[in-house]
Amino acid sequence: MRAATYHGARTIVLDERPPPAPPGPGQIQIAVAYTGICGTDLHIFHGDMDARVQPPTVIGHEMSGRIAALGAGTTGWEIGAPVTVMPTRSCGGCAACRRGLAHICHRLDFIGIDSPGAMQSLWTVPADLVIALPRGLPLEFATLAEPAAVAVHDVRRARVTGDDFVVVVGGGPVGLLIAAVATREGARVLVVEPDPFRRSVSMQIGIEAIDPRHHDVSAFVADRTDGAGADVAFEVSGATDGVTTAVDVLTTRGRLIMVAIHPKPREVNLHRFFWRELELLGARLYERSDFEEAVGLVAEGAIPAKQLISRVQPFEDVAAAFEALESRGGVMKVLVDCRDGVR
Amino acid sequence: MRAATYHGARTIVLDERPPPAPPGPGQIQIAVAYTGICGTDLHIFHGDMDARVQPPTVIGHEMSGRIAALGAGTTGWEIGAPVTVMPTRSCGGCAACRRGLAHICHRLDFIGIDSPGAMQSLWTVPADLVIALPRGLPLEFATLAEPAAVAVHDVRRARVTGDDFVVVVGGGPVGLLIAAVATREGARVLVVEPDPFRRSVSMQIGIEAIDPRHHDVSAFVADRTDGAGADVAFEVSGATDGVTTAVDVLTTRGRLIMVAIHPKPREVNLHRFFWRELELLGARLYERSDFEEAVGLVAEGAIPAKQLISRVQPFEDVAAAFEALESRGGVMKVLVDCRDGVR
Repeated sequence: MRAATYHGARTIVLDERPPPAPPGPGQIQIAVAYTGICGTDLHIFHGDMDARVQPPTVIGHEMSGRIAALGAGTTGWEIGAPVTVMPTRSCGGCAACRRGLAHICHRLDFIGIDSPGAMQSLWTVPADLVIALPRGLPLEFATLAEPAAVAVHDVRRARVTGDDFVVVVGGGPVGLLIAAVATREGARVLVVEPDPFRRSVSMQIGIEAIDPRHHDVSAFVADRTDGAGADVAFEVSGATDGVTTAVDVLTTRGRLIMVAIHPKPREVNLHRFFWRELELLGARLYERSDFEEAVGLVAEGAIPAKQLISRVQPFEDVAAAFEALESRGGVMKVLVDCRDGVR
Repeated sequence: MRAATYHGARTIVLDERPPPAPPGPGQIQIAVAYTGICGTDLHIFHGDMDARVQPPTVIGHEMSGRIAALGAGTTGWEIGAPVTVMPTRSCGGCAACRRGLAHICHRLDFIGIDSPGAMQSLWTVPADLVIALPRGLPLEFATLAEPAAVAVHDVRRARVTGDDFVVVVGGGPVGLLIAAVATREGARVLVVEPDPFRRSVSMQIGIEAIDPRHHDVSAFVADRTDGAGADVAFEVSGATDGVTTAVDVLTTRGRLIMVAIHPKPREVNLHRFFWRELELLGARLYERSDFEEAVGLVAEGAIPAKQLISRVQPFEDVAAAFEALESRGGVMKVLVDCRDGVR
């Protein structure tokens, strides 16, 4: 079988390996069909997360495939069934788990980062992380379940309703997924994104997008909301200016959801939080209910999978897939076709 | 009658004035007993708010007194009854009022700042802002109803319960009122305050207080919470370090309430908000229900009025009252006795 192995900064190699051992008790082996590359994978590719990933290792956690083999005690599954995997395991004992917040466990095992991931023809995972896919759903589309689960979690944290005006700051894959999920809730949504390609994808999926370098975003939002401002803003850009925009567009008691990773402290207008009684909510990953809802949204077509998947790269071109994504020009989501010749 | 008139930076003068006109329809005239000086009054005294207060004017908004005269159409009140005043009026038409958030109306009239305040022997206000006081409550203590209403609002925004460990960063009057209200909810409370006098007052009212210059506050809180961290932190210090402390002490999904005024943007560790799914909630002023609850808390003794009121200054020494407060050394709350000889 084949496995895309990360060996250190900027080095991903497609290895030919002997087939893995059969799945042990409570495990399921999956013939991986497609694996998407996300922003975190790109950070790993850049060598920024070597302390955590411990190369050489297989990365990847946005995937779809079919069941190839079942370990002892795994009931209710059949060989060939289409599945995806929720790639997180919690410890059950930490302060977060004890508070019922296992999804952000302090000792979380994020499979594909902390332990081997999906960019291999055969992948063995704990059965309780396997999630069934509807039969008719194209497996390419199903790779979006994982990032869509992030979006579902974010929108749920924001308590978005059909009466809300929502601003998404940052129109990359996660930003547009959030925009799509919020639209599905009935909200009016505006994407703020400087990159023209990303704006064009947003427009294609029916969501208005503006360039913050050419618009006064707060004035634009005020105009759309009878002067009130946005009910919800999602900060997905990771940029200092993005934080400022997200704070400034909000109406009284507006909610700002912190989705992006800001590696350094950012200057925040705390006076505005006080004066307008604003709310800032961190949102990370997803719970199983979010993931299952995300599968449903992909299946029903609420997630515009066709427009978000820019490219499917053959397994042998896995390094090129990372490079394409890195350039950012003209690509949104890039998948790697991990199928072995057998299917 | 007498009125303490603010004439511009550092100038408060006690004027002798002719008695005011009788109250108009819908107004009540109050014989003011005591007026407390708050941090905002001190900002005004420093000349920092001249654009808003428009000197010469009478300031003050933490007060108690007795009804002196009733305007036409004010029913249910009797002369001599002890009262306080909720000093805020909303416009009814702005985006905040339309959202049911009249207490932070965009065109709020804060009486004592935007219009003449309570530091005068006779004060005429709209009847709907007058709040009855229980008969037995000392009028000195009743001046704390207004700042206690802030504390009640803050604790309510924080959703404090009896299971919570609460950290109050900043042990001035508002900080200690928050600590007292949170204690009343059954929470365990820790005050973080560098000033030894303020810490001593906190200890006197039975609330543990530590010096952040001599303790690792996060480690201290972790030790008290089985490693978890605080459920709630109130930022009442207005200092950059206070923000950092308040963010760092929180447990997973902990709530940080922004009570202090931060005139400049502050660096905030947004990654921790993301990683631990923290929540930041701005909290400003109070609703009428908060104010009425505060009156009840003062009356039942849950607000340690005796320990919080450091000094009652005669009306003729009003300027000295501001100067005492300004020095910060050894005073918590300072009241001005506004009673005319008649009572």
